[in-house]
Amino acid sequence: MAKVDALIVERMQSPVPVIPALADHLIAAGGKRLRPLLSVAAARLAGARDDACLKLAAAVEFIHTATLLHDDVVDGSQLRRGKVAAHLIWGAPSSVLVGDFLFSRAFELMVDAGSMAALGVLAKASRVIAEGEVLQLTRAHELNLGQDMYLEIISAKTAELFAAAAEAGAISAGAPLAKCQALRDYGMKLGIAFQLADDALDYDGAAEALGKNPGDDFREGKATLPLLLAIERTGPSETKFWERTVAHRDQTDLDFRRAQDLVSRTGALDATLNLAADYAGAAKKALSGFAGPWRTALEDLADFAVSRSA
Amino acid sequence: MAKVDALIVERMQSPVPVIPALADHLIAAGGKRLRPLLSVAAARLAGARDDACLKLAAAVEFIHTATLLHDDVVDGSQLRRGKVAAHLIWGAPSSVLVGDFLFSRAFELMVDAGSMAALGVLAKASRVIAEGEVLQLTRAHELNLGQDMYLEIISAKTAELFAAAAEAGAISAGAPLAKCQALRDYGMKLGIAFQLADDALDYDGAAEALGKNPGDDFREGKATLPLLLAIERTGPSETKFWERTVAHRDQTDLDFRRAQDLVSRTGALDATLNLAADYAGAAKKALSGFAGPWRTALEDLADFAVSRSA
Repeated sequence: MAKVDALIVERMQSPVPVIPALADHLIAAGGKRLRPLLSVAAARLAGARDDACLKLAAAVEFIHTATLLHDDVVDGSQLRRGKVAAHLIWGAPSSVLVGDFLFSRAFELMVDAGSMAALGVLAKASRVIAEGEVLQLTRAHELNLGQDMYLEIISAKTAELFAAAAEAGAISAGAPLAKCQALRDYGMKLGIAFQLADDALDYDGAAEALGKNPGDDFREGKATLPLLLAIERTGPSETKFWERTVAHRDQTDLDFRRAQDLVSRTGALDATLNLAADYAGAAKKALSGFAGPWRTALEDLADFAVSRSA
Repeated sequence: MAKVDALIVERMQSPVPVIPALADHLIAAGGKRLRPLLSVAAARLAGARDDACLKLAAAVEFIHTATLLHDDVVDGSQLRRGKVAAHLIWGAPSSVLVGDFLFSRAFELMVDAGSMAALGVLAKASRVIAEGEVLQLTRAHELNLGQDMYLEIISAKTAELFAAAAEAGAISAGAPLAKCQALRDYGMKLGIAFQLADDALDYDGAAEALGKNPGDDFREGKATLPLLLAIERTGPSETKFWERTVAHRDQTDLDFRRAQDLVSRTGALDATLNLAADYAGAAKKALSGFAGPWRTALEDLADFAVSRSA
């Protein structure tokens, strides 16, 4: 992974000074590099000996970083990885254009990696992510969005890139179709588990210490699963509260505390975390056809994804 | 070109309804399809018999459309192709994300076209465009930007895609390196001629009828060549006027008329149009190694690029 990090730093350079400055703000702020790890692990698990997967891994992180830059502009987010969001420092226009730069760089890296099939998987993933983001944007404030539509949105906007990262790694290693499919399946379930845990964290009082800004989803009126389940379970007595705060985003600071309390008391938080654990378990099952230390690493990753508050 | 248009309409579809609606608003509004025409003409000129170049052509138009959507958000533009800009109807977030969708679709089309080398050329072009846009964003209001830096900016943000469209078409047709390079050279010079003529048009009184909104560049304080030359030629007596209106963008409606008058009276408008004609001539010279009706078509295109006010 140190080689992937070196590639990331090398390929985010540009003669236009704002670009590496803005990109470095986000990339050097850390991030868990989960997605590139998936590409490398999947390639190694499928028997890769060369380093083409490192280029794919860096490309995957660039796609992810580009979507973060665009998302923060779209959502007007204040914080990212515990630092002030880039668009608040360099302006939304620079964030949009540096996102485009990183996205293009990702495809240049994929060309270097040399697998057209892996490139096709990641091009499709980028398109599905954009569709998921638009879907979320247009339906984000629906109080009765439903668990199925919620899962469809997070599958597209989050899990697709996990799935594609693993699949592309396996394809670039020349793995047979069934193994590529199993690793894609692992990535998809891991990504869903990861997003469910992340959405739960936004209502979790212990999250402040992690550089997260709990309550962001609520303040943006984003219909995530903990909220949707709480709305379902509180019944008519709270209808007006949810309509005012979520559908119309007319909120005071105290409203988030009340929402947090309802999400916890109705068991909506636990139900979300349980579903995340189910998906993490299903992700591990998808690895049954593999063996060795890389399988163990991916199993540990599935456990980690749902225990990030630890 | 009818086949390219059909491909464009087919591949802008999505189950998320906002996406085709927003894309169609821009794509159906017309546009001259110059860039896809370049890909097809270059491929045919290089002897292509199959239709891979049509997919590349549609991909090139998608990249162009994605950059238009992002540019209009970045610049806060009101009009595009004579219609209200998409971000004013669907909001900036949708414009950013649908741009990302079209950009991803472009790479999916390139994967279908099957040439990794052509894909590499267009991936690099996308990155150079983003660099050019950031460069313009950060240096747009400099009164003494200079003709060289101006040409560097328009080469990156505009001409690179013309060059890449032609080069990718030639590569996909299996043309030898020298022919690919000649067609790239043609595209680069054509793109510079095109942007020079476009920047002149923004100070041309006759432009209203073309669905353009003359004065946009001036109102945004964009340092294009007609303005830079006029600033150079008017000397100290107008320094305060240019500083107020361009550097600080403190303007009244009458200021644009005065700027237009100065651009015309100093000969800055004619000098810009003459430079555009020089580049169009150089573009035609780059075609000397080719023959037949496609060469004629590309020569006509170079003439058209600098006579669009006609």
